Amino acid sequence: MNNSEDVVDFVHNGHKRYLPHLSIDCVIFGYHDQQLKILLIRYHDQENWSLPGGFVERREALTAAAHRILYEKTRLTNLFLQQFYTFGDSPIRLDHIEIQNNHNKVYAKANVAISDDHWLSKRTLSIGYYALVDYQAVTITPEFLVEGYSWVDINSIPPLQYDHNEIIDKALVTLRSQIYQQAIGQNLLPEKFTLPEIHSLYESILDRQFDRRNFRKKLLALGLVTQLEERRKIGQHRSPFLYAFNPEIANKPFEAGAMTAF
Amino acid sequence: MNNSEDVVDFVHNGHKRYLPHLSIDCVIFGYHDQQLKILLIRYHDQENWSLPGGFVERREALTAAAHRILYEKTRLTNLFLQQFYTFGDSPIRLDHIEIQNNHNKVYAKANVAISDDHWLSKRTLSIGYYALVDYQAVTITPEFLVEGYSWVDINSIPPLQYDHNEIIDKALVTLRSQIYQQAIGQNLLPEKFTLPEIHSLYESILDRQFDRRNFRKKLLALGLVTQLEERRKIGQHRSPFLYAFNPEIANKPFEAGAMTAF
Repeated sequence: MNNSEDVVDFVHNGHKRYLPHLSIDCVIFGYHDQQLKILLIRYHDQENWSLPGGFVERREALTAAAHRILYEKTRLTNLFLQQFYTFGDSPIRLDHIEIQNNHNKVYAKANVAISDDHWLSKRTLSIGYYALVDYQAVTITPEFLVEGYSWVDINSIPPLQYDHNEIIDKALVTLRSQIYQQAIGQNLLPEKFTLPEIHSLYESILDRQFDRRNFRKKLLALGLVTQLEERRKIGQHRSPFLYAFNPEIANKPFEAGAMTAF
Repeated sequence: MNNSEDVVDFVHNGHKRYLPHLSIDCVIFGYHDQQLKILLIRYHDQENWSLPGGFVERREALTAAAHRILYEKTRLTNLFLQQFYTFGDSPIRLDHIEIQNNHNKVYAKANVAISDDHWLSKRTLSIGYYALVDYQAVTITPEFLVEGYSWVDINSIPPLQYDHNEIIDKALVTLRSQIYQQAIGQNLLPEKFTLPEIHSLYESILDRQFDRRNFRKKLLALGLVTQLEERRKIGQHRSPFLYAFNPEIANKPFEAGAMTAF
């Protein structure tokens, strides 16, 4: 929503367009400066940051809705996007008054009030999706009600709106278990990368350190990455080999248990 | 719902009690006769079988709703129950006419008609949970609209109602990946079991055969099971050792990648 009129229309007519009681929240992971980060946003007059999210159109396929919402936020298509959990346990999701108060602060920017029985005040279950994106490729897209955007290191996530910290925790647990099942790194690294780069990405995801030489051996044994002939010139005496993911292995899930712990 | 009056009340007043557009479908796994099976039900005047399911009360926590529905179907509490995916992509979920027709056949048993704009005819997203149960402990609970119950071998699932085959496929994929992350067998086997019993359970889940001796070695190396002093007397010359899960290892998720493929 780019202007005040869009917002007013959404508040008055959104219930006809979207399924009630249901939202999508997106945990968008990007990798930058040797840190795994998550894209957070801050709505007008809100102290706490939030995950970007949206609603499902009444006749829209759920997966299509998630891709649409991600596109609206990042301008990326064909990204790695995976549903991981539907959240409906937190008591905050039943607190109509708190939700209504927050919404009234946010929507005040468009001079529109949210009544007690308004569809936006009602209980919402949220379907969590996580996306792995090339940090460089994201185009942050301004929205009328969003006043701040920030890529936050996963080790420094502040207290967020509603149950969004819980959503991030679950996304991280899922991502960490997926590392042994899919070529997670492929979506977060550039096409060619050095061994230290992929090694520090995996250390950052798993939040612990492990031996680089064994790590390299495991990736090569599985055939997940290939060492290229090409090197990168870093300094006069340093030109490490470049590596690339091997699409034959990296583009499908690993056989269960094929990759052991680093 | 045990009688016609309950059903009429549900049809007329259910929209006040439950969240609209949302259901829970349960894939209940049990192990019997060396086969992994799923509990299916058949509603009145329906050709196809269905997964058991239900709705979420307006102020009920989602996890609590799943446990309540499982209890209503099986009389089991404290069972292993895990959310695995929310389904909202299948075109059948948008086909009001087909859904209304099916409902009218089912609810005809209680002499109540489902109108075109009735809440039960509307698009429903379904949150999938899978349960692992002790087959012996389940008490099938009759319901007025359900005319058949059946434990069906996972290799002989017939074409089911709506997208329920897809839901089972996803549950199986999840269960298979979970085998390397949790003590799945603990919920499906009796407290003490022989090596051939747990071996054939795991073969049944993974749908392939693997060497029994290596399998035993892996379970023992991980500390997942313990060989007991006790033996089971099967015949004059056969009395295999019994095994039990080791609660210290079995009651928490394995470290990622700790168990490699059988």
